[in-house]
Amino acid sequence: MTVRVAELPDAAALRGQVVSCLDGFLDRKARTAAGLGLPAEVPRLLRDFLASGGKRLRPLLCITGWQAASGHGALEPVVRTAASLEMFHAFCLIHDDIMDNSDTRRGAPTLHRRLTRHHQDGRSTAAARHLGASTAVLVGDLALAWSDELLHTAGHTLRQLAAVLPLVDVMRSEVMYGQYLDVTAANRPTTDVERALQIVRYKTAKYTVERPLHIGAALASPSPAMCEALSAYALPLGEAFQLRDDLLGVFGTPEVTGKPSLDDLREGKHTVLAALALGRADAGQRHTLATLLGDPGLDDTGADRIRRVLTATGARESVERMISTRHAQALDALQAASLPAAATGTLRQLADAATARTS
Amino acid sequence: MTVRVAELPDAAALRGQVVSCLDGFLDRKARTAAGLGLPAEVPRLLRDFLASGGKRLRPLLCITGWQAASGHGALEPVVRTAASLEMFHAFCLIHDDIMDNSDTRRGAPTLHRRLTRHHQDGRSTAAARHLGASTAVLVGDLALAWSDELLHTAGHTLRQLAAVLPLVDVMRSEVMYGQYLDVTAANRPTTDVERALQIVRYKTAKYTVERPLHIGAALASPSPAMCEALSAYALPLGEAFQLRDDLLGVFGTPEVTGKPSLDDLREGKHTVLAALALGRADAGQRHTLATLLGDPGLDDTGADRIRRVLTATGARESVERMISTRHAQALDALQAASLPAAATGTLRQLADAATARTS
Repeated sequence: MTVRVAELPDAAALRGQVVSCLDGFLDRKARTAAGLGLPAEVPRLLRDFLASGGKRLRPLLCITGWQAASGHGALEPVVRTAASLEMFHAFCLIHDDIMDNSDTRRGAPTLHRRLTRHHQDGRSTAAARHLGASTAVLVGDLALAWSDELLHTAGHTLRQLAAVLPLVDVMRSEVMYGQYLDVTAANRPTTDVERALQIVRYKTAKYTVERPLHIGAALASPSPAMCEALSAYALPLGEAFQLRDDLLGVFGTPEVTGKPSLDDLREGKHTVLAALALGRADAGQRHTLATLLGDPGLDDTGADRIRRVLTATGARESVERMISTRHAQALDALQAASLPAAATGTLRQLADAATARTS
Repeated sequence: MTVRVAELPDAAALRGQVVSCLDGFLDRKARTAAGLGLPAEVPRLLRDFLASGGKRLRPLLCITGWQAASGHGALEPVVRTAASLEMFHAFCLIHDDIMDNSDTRRGAPTLHRRLTRHHQDGRSTAAARHLGASTAVLVGDLALAWSDELLHTAGHTLRQLAAVLPLVDVMRSEVMYGQYLDVTAANRPTTDVERALQIVRYKTAKYTVERPLHIGAALASPSPAMCEALSAYALPLGEAFQLRDDLLGVFGTPEVTGKPSLDDLREGKHTVLAALALGRADAGQRHTLATLLGDPGLDDTGADRIRRVLTATGARESVERMISTRHAQALDALQAASLPAAATGTLRQLADAATARTS
């Protein structure tokens, strides 16, 4: 399908195209695996995982980046590139859930828990859990490898491929370093807000917003000024997105977020929210945070005590203000960028949705 | 450095160039990380890991594949491609060691054990072990991402890059599927020799021998007949290589192999050796294998009992014969291939070394 930029399908239709692309790719992988006596449950489980939800934010940003840089011609290679980002994101989530020991994702068992059940078959609980984690690491690894395969076979010119590959390389290093910082800082929150913001930048702002826009734009030979304009929008918005995520992880409604409301507190992630609260806490509040944040056995009563400290210290309110400031910065940058009107409209909507969401 | 094929440096010199390339790449990564406040221990630990040994078989095969296809021109991009295979192999080993719960590799602590110590710092043993495994998964992920970066920045023409990328995609899927088959079949060995050989093909023969040759050759626009000739050599040799590995894992000298001699038996891997022995065992021998193979608490006495069964059933001798047959097939294929004399010489040496080795 060849489209002019003004005719780009709406977000819901684009999401549908990305999911169809992933389904088709993984169905072919499952058929090939079955034919060769290879474990067809790998592409099947990955297909279920990808179908189970998600905002498809990175694919939409990728397609919008292409639109922003006045991309034209066939939409299919762009959708496939967008789909490759969603496949890479599946890799990230699968490995993250193993590292975080999470039981549920999007309201359903995480992949390593599903694989634990899949491979139970007379094994001891400990052996099945270890095998569940091992096979989930491998399904994640295959998702990473297949995200590349989707990109390499997207139908790009060699020049487009050469423009995109270095950005994909940078994006992967950034998010992996961000996750490394995140897991090593967990369970020992400090008052270091800058460190917390660094994690946000690497793990979310660059990975979730800036690089998808850049990758999409790279397919349409953008000017350096265009890439800078996209960054000026992306980085504050990405920070706001993660700060909202942190608030939802603690104060959100599990039925809406799809994620148990105790997970984040039990992990004791080094968030801006926790760092600010620790910095402003009196002795009693500091004791509450020090003993309860990161306690894997935390119950609802303990969680409520933490929530009261996060609110009473003003940390929650400060994070809300940080989100508003960054949201405004992103919109200002967008106004200054003079992108095609359709791209500007989509990016404004995404900025509103990403910062005001409840899930 | 531009070389004519006949002037290619010897294997030791090529190994040195591959290691220098990896060192230089990771030193730059460490400096960049330090400058940005990112965890510089990641590239440093990876550099140590890569420097700690290994036969550099895949890099040498890659360079020889290029030579076989009459590659000419600058050697550096070929060495860098070879180095990217070694970096990818580091990813495989790091993740495999986590899945196999291995304590040592090449006579030193495995990376996840080193990272457990690195992150100990007042944590409980269980928490430090989990963090060690999590960060090792991430270091492995970064090794995979950086193997691509090495390849993408090797200085290839876009046409060369386009020829190599699909082969890299296939190689990665094959070895990941092979590892999946391997870990899910562990601890429950059966008499299914074909299944054991399938694991060998995917996890070793294609990954370690065939694909490195193909990737090197792809840089020099090989004919389809050339690729088939390389496969005809590679697949039997790769099987022989793994069958030798299985024998060394059980009967080898730990001081020479760098690997504790109980690990393979404790894991209860579904090897051709075990499958043959189970198929020929009498009731008593079958009981020995069923109770001891895959027992994580196996001691030296138990290991000796298993070894006696593997020998008494003739399984050990059969595997030796399978190695000889495959070694001969590889050499016959090499003779029929009429490659440049220098490539033929190297491949003959590698075939001898890979099947007759003691470590």
